[in-house]
Amino acid sequence: MPDVPAVLAGDRRALARLLTHIENGTPAADAALAALYPHTGRAHLIGLTGPPGSGKSSLANHLALRLRQGRPAGAEGPAREPASVAIVAVDPSSPFTGGAILGDRIRMRDLAGDPGVYIRSMASRGSLGGLARATADVVKALDAAGFDKILIETVGAGQSEVDIARAVHTTVVVEAPGLGDDVQAIKAGLLEVADILVVNKADLPGADAAVRALRASLDLAHPAARRWAADGGGHHGPAVTPAPVPAASLPEAPAWIPPLITTVAVDSQGLDALLAAIEQHQAHLRATGELSRRERERLAHELETRLRDQLLAALHHRLGSPAMAAALDQVVAREKDPGTVARELAAQALRL
Amino acid sequence: MPDVPAVLAGDRRALARLLTHIENGTPAADAALAALYPHTGRAHLIGLTGPPGSGKSSLANHLALRLRQGRPAGAEGPAREPASVAIVAVDPSSPFTGGAILGDRIRMRDLAGDPGVYIRSMASRGSLGGLARATADVVKALDAAGFDKILIETVGAGQSEVDIARAVHTTVVVEAPGLGDDVQAIKAGLLEVADILVVNKADLPGADAAVRALRASLDLAHPAARRWAADGGGHHGPAVTPAPVPAASLPEAPAWIPPLITTVAVDSQGLDALLAAIEQHQAHLRATGELSRRERERLAHELETRLRDQLLAALHHRLGSPAMAAALDQVVAREKDPGTVARELAAQALRL
Repeated sequence: MPDVPAVLAGDRRALARLLTHIENGTPAADAALAALYPHTGRAHLIGLTGPPGSGKSSLANHLALRLRQGRPAGAEGPAREPASVAIVAVDPSSPFTGGAILGDRIRMRDLAGDPGVYIRSMASRGSLGGLARATADVVKALDAAGFDKILIETVGAGQSEVDIARAVHTTVVVEAPGLGDDVQAIKAGLLEVADILVVNKADLPGADAAVRALRASLDLAHPAARRWAADGGGHHGPAVTPAPVPAASLPEAPAWIPPLITTVAVDSQGLDALLAAIEQHQAHLRATGELSRRERERLAHELETRLRDQLLAALHHRLGSPAMAAALDQVVAREKDPGTVARELAAQALRL
Repeated sequence: MPDVPAVLAGDRRALARLLTHIENGTPAADAALAALYPHTGRAHLIGLTGPPGSGKSSLANHLALRLRQGRPAGAEGPAREPASVAIVAVDPSSPFTGGAILGDRIRMRDLAGDPGVYIRSMASRGSLGGLARATADVVKALDAAGFDKILIETVGAGQSEVDIARAVHTTVVVEAPGLGDDVQAIKAGLLEVADILVVNKADLPGADAAVRALRASLDLAHPAARRWAADGGGHHGPAVTPAPVPAASLPEAPAWIPPLITTVAVDSQGLDALLAAIEQHQAHLRATGELSRRERERLAHELETRLRDQLLAALHHRLGSPAMAAALDQVVAREKDPGTVARELAAQALRL
């Protein structure tokens, strides 16, 4: 049984053991999560998503380093307290290895040995739904363990993007120049989930074109953004952080327009602008009540997913394996279609 | 109500109406699918998956063109009967538009007006699980409507790859040179689901490096492939199709080693080698009993997914919205964790 009080007290070894229980889906993990749950809800959950090669992992590492250091008040803005940071690197495309991610981690020696940073790589073990659930539980454990910021890093493509946007407070979509066909790369789906857009590797050829293309897509998606199209001018490179839309110009709560930030993560360029945007987004979520709305939506989604699992397990337990196999046999023999069999079994199980 | 006999008789307008019902999830679609289901199971389902920019859509279009033409017996191999072809283009990353895919379609005028080809683009309408189910049902309808080959094209990244591999008989993974960080792009997950690997756009710089990298990954994943490492020599470009492993050298049924094919889809290069590999894979599936195994697994997965949906809907119907909202309130207030609430509700609903 994982040692819940030790996890709450910040014991890293107890935390690691709990996370292994969660990844293995043991009953002890369920009990520990039930005990930890009242202590969750404090961390700022930040998603980093983008295509392979966009440099998400480096960005997460360097953001963590910057967050650890904090910042005195000065010309660059108000002071920022040093924060404890957890990174959860999720690799849904690799059921058996977290190779690429681990490679990145090894390169990042500056974070090693800092007790205020915790890094966990998660790879799928067969069931992808299982990976999403395990990730949600790992995040809960890290939240209860007291980390201020939790960076959740996933390969962004389709389903992953939407899933990550559901599971975090602030979604940072990371692009980079030269990742193939621009028309296809700048997907509507990306813009729809992005709270903050980053063009990383902004020192590479094609960065300006990538920024222009994203800016044009943003203008289409958020017409109000045009009013703030003038570059804000970051302190590192051509970072563009539009000011919030003045409340007076809008009858409702001011809409959040995703800022577009350029970074060179490996040279620490643009990181302060990105951190400022992340903080602004958090303040926006709080000020508008959007934080509560997102929390409720996120938990509703999680509850629904778990209910599906539990109901199926309960049905299986009730009808028994032979009856389930017989139902599948009918489908395989093309006697009844899967939809009809599912409706019949559900009605039978719940005696509707 | 969709006209089921007309769909079975090959009426394209009746088919289009049915597919719209399926996409909209109407009750009439359920009834029609139940009636069509006994007529399914004849088509060869071929998945094409790969990153944006790999040229999947062009490859699907040109494969369709080639399949329509058939081929007389000759130096290039045995005769191939002309086949009817359906293309289902799935874009999970774009909830609202199928823009990029439609753009590709418009470029492909050669297929227009051919009654033996049917192309349907599907974009997510909010629910991604809903998209997967709608795609499975669209494929069933096309199968029942008599199409010989159904090409299902998705953006490949993580979950999508595994989902497509579950839903088809033969999975073709498409890569192309210059799609970013090679180490990250050549994911273990890709190789695990690939029945056939394609390096498309093989006329671009970097094609040789991409082929070498994939070949090295293949050798790691399938050590037996090394024995066939000598290039087979395709008729178009450096296509590499290893001969099947001789049964005598293996005690079990011969393992399928994914062949690596190079293509330039827009110039129709390598397409015959790819079609030959697809046919060889189908023959392998039949000869080894793997076809039945995959069918059963595919249908088990679909039945399970539909059961989850039906059970949740039935639970909601039985407990009512206020009770469901009260359960969520407990989770939002951090009184009980989602796992505990899900277990309690499931047990209550099924009176365990």
